[in-house]
Amino acid sequence: MSVMVPGERVTIYDVAEAARVSTATASKALNDSGRMAVETRARIKRVAQELGFRPNSLAQSLTRKRSFTVGLLTNDSYGRFTLPVMAGISEGLIDHGVSVFLCAVGDKPELAQVHVEAMLDKRVDGIIATGKRVDRPLPVDLSRMPVPVVYALTAGPEEGLTILPDDRQGAGEAVRHLLAQGRRRIAHITGPRDFEVVHERALACAQVLAETAGASDAGALYGSWSEHWGHEAVAELWSQAQRPDGIFCGNDQIARGVVDALRERGVSVPGDVSVVGFDNWEIVAKETRPPLTTVDMNLKELGRQAGLALVRLVTGEPVDKGIWRLPCSLIVRSS
Amino acid sequence: MSVMVPGERVTIYDVAEAARVSTATASKALNDSGRMAVETRARIKRVAQELGFRPNSLAQSLTRKRSFTVGLLTNDSYGRFTLPVMAGISEGLIDHGVSVFLCAVGDKPELAQVHVEAMLDKRVDGIIATGKRVDRPLPVDLSRMPVPVVYALTAGPEEGLTILPDDRQGAGEAVRHLLAQGRRRIAHITGPRDFEVVHERALACAQVLAETAGASDAGALYGSWSEHWGHEAVAELWSQAQRPDGIFCGNDQIARGVVDALRERGVSVPGDVSVVGFDNWEIVAKETRPPLTTVDMNLKELGRQAGLALVRLVTGEPVDKGIWRLPCSLIVRSS
Repeated sequence: MSVMVPGERVTIYDVAEAARVSTATASKALNDSGRMAVETRARIKRVAQELGFRPNSLAQSLTRKRSFTVGLLTNDSYGRFTLPVMAGISEGLIDHGVSVFLCAVGDKPELAQVHVEAMLDKRVDGIIATGKRVDRPLPVDLSRMPVPVVYALTAGPEEGLTILPDDRQGAGEAVRHLLAQGRRRIAHITGPRDFEVVHERALACAQVLAETAGASDAGALYGSWSEHWGHEAVAELWSQAQRPDGIFCGNDQIARGVVDALRERGVSVPGDVSVVGFDNWEIVAKETRPPLTTVDMNLKELGRQAGLALVRLVTGEPVDKGIWRLPCSLIVRSS
Repeated sequence: MSVMVPGERVTIYDVAEAARVSTATASKALNDSGRMAVETRARIKRVAQELGFRPNSLAQSLTRKRSFTVGLLTNDSYGRFTLPVMAGISEGLIDHGVSVFLCAVGDKPELAQVHVEAMLDKRVDGIIATGKRVDRPLPVDLSRMPVPVVYALTAGPEEGLTILPDDRQGAGEAVRHLLAQGRRRIAHITGPRDFEVVHERALACAQVLAETAGASDAGALYGSWSEHWGHEAVAELWSQAQRPDGIFCGNDQIARGVVDALRERGVSVPGDVSVVGFDNWEIVAKETRPPLTTVDMNLKELGRQAGLALVRLVTGEPVDKGIWRLPCSLIVRSS
């Protein structure tokens, strides 16, 4: 028996739709199980082949279970980071008939414990923990769960599997992009000092500048994750004699404030100064004038990897523990 | 036996914390169950009383169950509307030890069906359906579920219970606020015509203006839910001889575009023109310069009501079916 798993986008649902049969029938046809006319089975297999289906041993091991459920725990009440991770998990496991149940555990340990127990009561097959910052654990100890746990975009225990974006690599790309635009004096405007990502991004920025002949480091300014701070920081930088011609911002909201503040001073972006953000939060990045060049943490891919890793743990396949750092991507727009 | 239920913010967890005992001990003390020193029980009860705890029959009926789980289904992949609703459900039921499991069902009927079945497999006590618009149902039929269903911020069947914000009342308040600021010529800049909320808000706007002596209706401009459209609409209005002195926008993103566009034309907000948005999406409304006066749909309260209604349905208490319209609130800032 073999189970079909899709390429990038083709799912069992697409096969069923294309063949005009139910998902159950499509699944039976592809698994050589169930009863149906020989021609029907052949036709469904042909459709699957045309769409680019491939058998997959991972999914095969899952067919022993009736349904596979991932419990996703988060303390990100805003959902800005969690929903892309959730979408990625679903997307990665879509053809396994997997459902992801998200539970917002909040920040109180006792309440978080209640929610985790509810998840276990419901016999989820595995848990993915995610959060709003990579340097803080969820307010509940998941190290002795009866099901496998993967940590994604939140701090995990040393012996666990934790999947994080490669902030240094992402920040490095942002700064190299500014240099590639011919910018030479680079400032970094970022969030509060006590965030690990602030430290990582600032470090990468300074490192790339130190390594590049002719580049000059205008230093890092630390503030809040807000547009307001972007305005303030520009006022500070422009009160000095020597001004930067490139600005790398710690997130897109700061970058939006910076771009607005520069425009209001008559400084052209990207004519006089180039600006790069971080997050690729489209609601902010795309509506910035001009649209913002920024770093995407690929949270959907991070979720997909977390989901696939969890399935491997559930099915007893080998998985490397420790911290996985997944690459960020530079999204070049017009700033 | 009686179970204690909190006032607005006091929970069993707060009682436990204040009394420096575990939640289990606090619960036992308040329910006159379990073994503990008489003084301990008395002390915990005193703390509960001081904090304002009250016994509640609703919760009492729930104590027969070990845990109460709400399945929340949504097709709002962005989470902007769903997460406040989810937070409200949790907040409303927090002291029942209720856990809310969110499942993103997407827009494909077959996939949505898989997720609903997974929820039922896990024996959730009830389902709340929510979405990204009030005039579209989820892509799955929930009318014959084995558990009660409440619809919140999505279209529900006639025989069901559907909880929606009162868009007309909210829009009416926005326009009356503009008039109360001395504004007389009011324009409405809003989203696409095929949204029911666009129709409702425009209707309320026109109605209030028609009913107010001295008020003049500069008409409604329909576009997209974006800042970009706010800029365009201002360009259109300011190309005409007669300009509005008050603008009611269909959402906060449009309003932000409008405020930015006016500032860039040298039109003072609120000196020359007052602007009101809709949504109270804080990331947009608070960062607008000046901060945006806007209408809040009270989605948290909507979620709370949905959660409480669902509990009543689960426990067999009477609940009025049909459409409940919950009032919106005007949030006055500086625009």
